[in-house]
Amino acid sequence: MSDHSQAPVAAHEPPYYVAVFTSVRTEDETGYGETAERMEELVARIPGYLGMDHARTPGGLSITVGYFRDEDAIKEWSATTEHRAAQRRGRAEWYERYTLHIAKVERSHGYERARG
Amino acid sequence: MSDHSQAPVAAHEPPYYVAVFTSVRTEDETGYGETAERMEELVARIPGYLGMDHARTPGGLSITVGYFRDEDAIKEWSATTEHRAAQRRGRAEWYERYTLHIAKVERSHGYERARG
Repeated sequence: MSDHSQAPVAAHEPPYYVAVFTSVRTEDETGYGETAERMEELVARIPGYLGMDHARTPGGLSITVGYFRDEDAIKEWSATTEHRAAQRRGRAEWYERYTLHIAKVERSHGYERARG
Repeated sequence: MSDHSQAPVAAHEPPYYVAVFTSVRTEDETGYGETAERMEELVARIPGYLGMDHARTPGGLSITVGYFRDEDAIKEWSATTEHRAAQRRGRAEWYERYTLHIAKVERSHGYERARG
């Protein structure tokens, strides 16, 4: 997935949910980029979706963090037919291994350097 | 921080905690690597520390996810004097902006490609 900007998603008022997806990819990138873009389009339509952060170390680990207002938003995203198909293709082609952690945020804070 | 291996931290039995730290760095890398290594040494000594994942898109976002068994482990890490000093230096020198989300994992699962 692409970085949307230099700014990570800001701290929201808790509670909210994070879906932390850590993965190592295979060498097969066929169709990955298009699918990732399509998933970003689709998830943005889910009521309660708050944003996404992504980082990937070249040749190493990828981490994607999705932010959602509540469990219903995560459930709706998990149940999205096109998302489920992408997950199946991911297991078949793109992911060597992954872990998904669904967690309820209890507190958060942010820092931004003062401009000078 | 370095990638320790190609394998992300595995799903533990919930509940456990994640500390999701998303950041954009400044151009000042002086002392960053040494401090990051020292922090990895120190956090590994905290009872209830379960592991860490890190990814960084070159020129873009960094995401570090720390895994902890319970809130006490996170509190102990937050209160560690040398860690607090590193955070202050981070704000003064290394971070353009960051967000920290502390969250309780409610469910998790993993996938690993079959060998063969």
